[in-house]
Amino acid sequence: MFLRIEDFMDAAEVQAIAQLAAQVRFIDGRRSNPHNPTKSSAIGDSTDPAAQQASQIALTALQRSEAVKNFVFPRRMAVPNFARYEAGMKYGAHTDVAFMPLAPQPLRSDVSCTMFISDPSEYQGGELVISLGTELLRIKGRPGSAIFYPSTTIHEVAPVSSGVRLVMITFIESQIADQLQRDLLYTLGEVRALEGLKIDWQNRVHLEYVIANLHRMWAH
Amino acid sequence: MFLRIEDFMDAAEVQAIAQLAAQVRFIDGRRSNPHNPTKSSAIGDSTDPAAQQASQIALTALQRSEAVKNFVFPRRMAVPNFARYEAGMKYGAHTDVAFMPLAPQPLRSDVSCTMFISDPSEYQGGELVISLGTELLRIKGRPGSAIFYPSTTIHEVAPVSSGVRLVMITFIESQIADQLQRDLLYTLGEVRALEGLKIDWQNRVHLEYVIANLHRMWAH
Amino acid sequence: MFLRIEDFMDAAEVQAIAQLAAQVRFIDGRRSNPHNPTKSSAIGDSTDPAAQQASQIALTALQRSEAVKNFVFPRRMAVPNFARYEAGMKYGAHTDVAFMPLAPQPLRSDVSCTMFISDPSEYQGGELVISLGTELLRIKGRPGSAIFYPSTTIHEVAPVSSGVRLVMITFIESQIADQLQRDLLYTLGEVRALEGLKIDWQNRVHLEYVIANLHRMWAH
Amino acid sequence: MFLRIEDFMDAAEVQAIAQLAAQVRFIDGRRSNPHNPTKSSAIGDSTDPAAQQASQIALTALQRSEAVKNFVFPRRMAVPNFARYEAGMKYGAHTDVAFMPLAPQPLRSDVSCTMFISDPSEYQGGELVISLGTELLRIKGRPGSAIFYPSTTIHEVAPVSSGVRLVMITFIESQIADQLQRDLLYTLGEVRALEGLKIDWQNRVHLEYVIANLHRMWAH
Amino acid sequence: MFLRIEDFMDAAEVQAIAQLAAQVRFIDGRRSNPHNPTKSSAIGDSTDPAAQQASQIALTALQRSEAVKNFVFPRRMAVPNFARYEAGMKYGAHTDVAFMPLAPQPLRSDVSCTMFISDPSEYQGGELVISLGTELLRIKGRPGSAIFYPSTTIHEVAPVSSGVRLVMITFIESQIADQLQRDLLYTLGEVRALEGLKIDWQNRVHLEYVIANLHRMWAH
Amino acid sequence: MFLRIEDFMDAAEVQAIAQLAAQVRFIDGRRSNPHNPTKSSAIGDSTDPAAQQASQIALTALQRSEAVKNFVFPRRMAVPNFARYEAGMKYGAHTDVAFMPLAPQPLRSDVSCTMFISDPSEYQGGELVISLGTELLRIKGRPGSAIFYPSTTIHEVAPVSSGVRLVMITFIESQIADQLQRDLLYTLGEVRALEGLKIDWQNRVHLEYVIANLHRMWAH
Repeated sequence: MFLRIEDFMDAAEVQAIAQLAAQVRFIDGRRSNPHNPTKSSAIGDSTDPAAQQASQIALTALQRSEAVKNFVFPRRMAVPNFARYEAGMKYGAHTDVAFMPLAPQPLRSDVSCTMFISDPSEYQGGELVISLGTELLRIKGRPGSAIFYPSTTIHEVAPVSSGVRLVMITFIESQIADQLQRDLLYTLGEVRALEGLKIDWQNRVHLEYVIANLHRMWAH
Repeated sequence: MFLRIEDFMDAAEVQAIAQLAAQVRFIDGRRSNPHNPTKSSAIGDSTDPAAQQASQIALTALQRSEAVKNFVFPRRMAVPNFARYEAGMKYGAHTDVAFMPLAPQPLRSDVSCTMFISDPSEYQGGELVISLGTELLRIKGRPGSAIFYPSTTIHEVAPVSSGVRLVMITFIESQIADQLQRDLLYTLGEVRALEGLKIDWQNRVHLEYVIANLHRMWAH
Repeated sequence: MFLRIEDFMDAAEVQAIAQLAAQVRFIDGRRSNPHNPTKSSAIGDSTDPAAQQASQIALTALQRSEAVKNFVFPRRMAVPNFARYEAGMKYGAHTDVAFMPLAPQPLRSDVSCTMFISDPSEYQGGELVISLGTELLRIKGRPGSAIFYPSTTIHEVAPVSSGVRLVMITFIESQIADQLQRDLLYTLGEVRALEGLKIDWQNRVHLEYVIANLHRMWAH
Repeated sequence: MFLRIEDFMDAAEVQAIAQLAAQVRFIDGRRSNPHNPTKSSAIGDSTDPAAQQASQIALTALQRSEAVKNFVFPRRMAVPNFARYEAGMKYGAHTDVAFMPLAPQPLRSDVSCTMFISDPSEYQGGELVISLGTELLRIKGRPGSAIFYPSTTIHEVAPVSSGVRLVMITFIESQIADQLQRDLLYTLGEVRALEGLKIDWQNRVHLEYVIANLHRMWAH
Repeated sequence: MFLRIEDFMDAAEVQAIAQLAAQVRFIDGRRSNPHNPTKSSAIGDSTDPAAQQASQIALTALQRSEAVKNFVFPRRMAVPNFARYEAGMKYGAHTDVAFMPLAPQPLRSDVSCTMFISDPSEYQGGELVISLGTELLRIKGRPGSAIFYPSTTIHEVAPVSSGVRLVMITFIESQIADQLQRDLLYTLGEVRALEGLKIDWQNRVHLEYVIANLHRMWAH
Repeated sequence: MFLRIEDFMDAAEVQAIAQLAAQVRFIDGRRSNPHNPTKSSAIGDSTDPAAQQASQIALTALQRSEAVKNFVFPRRMAVPNFARYEAGMKYGAHTDVAFMPLAPQPLRSDVSCTMFISDPSEYQGGELVISLGTELLRIKGRPGSAIFYPSTTIHEVAPVSSGVRLVMITFIESQIADQLQRDLLYTLGEVRALEGLKIDWQNRVHLEYVIANLHRMWAH
């Protein structure tokens, strides 16, 4: 399932990140996936202090979001990083690798996240294209918005034909690895949040009973 | 989980069964579990037409009950049969066997059912005692009531010290083998039944979404 | 995952079904889901011989399709039926029920299928809209095409503002209930089909080993 | 499943805890579950050194108990805390939350534990009532006894009508989340402990083989 | 796990089958697996009455065997058939297909069975070679013996360099698809059979409790 | 599944370990399994610096091996230790315990490893015998070779009738507990490694898609 949050970061945060991007040292994106010949992009050098500052802003936004907490059931998050696509760049169809290096033990990528920084009017192409078999989702977000989607899919960044696409990306390990289970528990939590004060107390208790036990059953 | 239905059969049904019991040929209960030396009881001879008539009354009650349908998610039911305990008889601690012969293929016993025919005032002892580790549940039902309990437990019929305990028993294969999963789906169904007309339509749709998918996920 | 087959039925079949539709008795679509106030559509009366003839054409197409066999791993199929939406009709957001009546035992709906009969140019609106959280897929197929999608989703038919939308629909129980597992096995089967003659024999044997064992592990 | 241990703490430990309780600062019990309007109780302030001393005594008892080790398969334990119910207080029906804050990562509550400090003769009401569907277990323990029960249940503390009910409570994350799996492994371990020296060596090896592999299979 | 039964058929049965083999029409073994170029063998024509008579003898042996019942937990069996390897013939490394055609629905092959008819002294080569990664098991049985092994493995029949290897083979769908689960339940059943009369009654009841619930949990 | 690596350590490493063994203090092997009367062996004293030096050599070999990484999916490894069997010594049939003490939390033994130090020509008997039901694997490795096998099996070290058998052993917790799942993922990885550069890019992407998702699904 997909969650698009329109106001994930406010204008000041987006501006701060954009300005930091101007100072950051970018390196060849294939360093994070050297075996994929279809990848051409630039990524932030994570040892650069300006990149680290931007990562911190993004991380703060991730951690304060109730929507992320409810939808993702996050256990651990990778450090968000810059990805920049100039004209002619793209990232061909691929699946995010299952486990990513992160001390003290590898992080399982369950949910991928793209945070949009540059304005869609500033670049042509560059959609995040998510394959659902023969059907495709094409996503191009406004600055400050973010999209959370299952890391399990095959997806790509379509070629940028002009302008520059600047985003930050990260990967989240969820308490609940299975996508459908995660969505059912999220959905039940939303029902509780929206109806919990209106329904009879005993039914509320029963709803909590189901939620708590699904959470126990599925979290590992 | 346990479901006791007080008015599972009406007075006429109970009386009809009791009268049939007086005509039925009873045989040694150990025929259905020859390896258990702690069992002493009499069971109805299932080839006896009077026993078959009683079974049919009990089966009708099982099939018409909405509560049974919602709680048990029944797939198949064994033919209900008489069990009669006279003074001195008992059925020591045991677990119901996992698979019982039933054409065209064995029936997995997920839920056991005791339907009470004789009045508790007419016999001493004879409780259905269900072991939950160090704690016990002791159940002695009124005529016409029924108790549905997990076949997974160790349970016994306490010795009858006087009078006669007459019950009908059966075993049900559920769509959902796991007890907790079955109870969560039942509970969510009850919340929908009780609150479904009061909650917002969209939340109702979301509740249905969760129920349908848990049902798919767990039924096998 | 989604599979759209463009040439699922040929022109003659589509025409035959369209002509049968003109003779078929249609009934209120809420008969198949009386509790959903957002549903307004007409469905074919399955006792009408013309409807049965159309169902047979659709069934034949389903059974001959290699793509369906490979993608769905079908175990049982419900009888395809007509659904007709005239101007003003729609089917609001809903989840397909988990189990549908079908002798000798209920059919678990794992994959839903819409076969398009009327031409998209003949009606406004009427898209099949599938919810993927905040993102939506909107599907409107050419005559003779079919879309197979997970029954697990919340989906709707958008209101038809003019013209008539005529489709046939059915539901399939798969050997493999879990959507992701089904897609992984399908994908591996496609790799084998496309590369199987080119790869080294031993690697082919190893690929078969994985496919056969995933199939055993997941089919229930 | 339930485990009641009669001599979980000795008389000196119970007395020491009771004396510490007299010095401890108690706070409103709703702090640990602010959303439950049916809760009225007092809990120990965990920053109070006297409360910490009592917690340590309880923790020592938990860690030394072979019965707890065999029955619960504990991985981590929450710090035990006081709960005090004076006349008029109660804790309505609720389910323990699935995950509780505990550094470095949340603790999954699989098994709940109540350690009884005050004598049942000193208060009226106040039973721990555990719901098993329509059947209830009512538990009121002697000082020094403890009851371990699945955190998955709906349970309550019945209103105290007179006197004071003082207990310590804690929550344990087990290696084995599923209640029935945990009980099967416990039961097999008991058979090994009681029969292991009497049975043939080869059968002993086979029993160990089953136990070790169930443990591997279920612990996560 | 592997089960070799030395006296699976008696001398008269073996002789009867060998004599029937002399009359049976054999066909190219690749008919049952046309895509495997490494297969060269002859198989019995299942429409030949002599082949059917041999199948019946083998089926009778399978159905009467307590060892097979306890080890395999058979649900359905394919009709046993002849396989004959003359000098120069072999069946290269392969995995048995997951589902085999068998009315009314496909049979999942969980356990494969080879019943040896010809004497190992009568042919050179022709071992059943089962791959366990880098280690191999080589099996060549006496007439009347049978080997039951997981259908999940990669295995082959080594080239016959002289003489004729005549066997009958079949495939069994087990109640318990997972090999380790099946073996744990078998092993526990053996412990019960060997120690059940010697151990204390209560421990016997506990052992039955574990066995019945593992059986319920794993059979599907 | 089994993996035998012939050149796991080089001659210099084997020699270094053999020389360290001559200095190491050995203790009674039953210290690591005091309840098994069939065990008679000597194990290295892990507090002895020479033993620690040997452990380090073995650990280095384990960590550098690509084959181990691909086959075992190691998460954590126990410290390798010496086991020495002199004439008359053996280790009867046993299963490795499921969880072994190792800070900060117990290690689940999924894969057992024996590294051979002494030459098979130097001792009689002493095979590692792994039981697969009625069939046995007998393994006796050259110096510097290692065998990795499932900890789930019953296995033994056959009595040494003359000479000295010196090995190092360890236990590995895998990301993937289930043996068959681990082998399927390993096998698919091998196919990718061997065919990945030859197959069409899109099929390569599809293969990666399957591998990444199986890894996510099974690692816990």
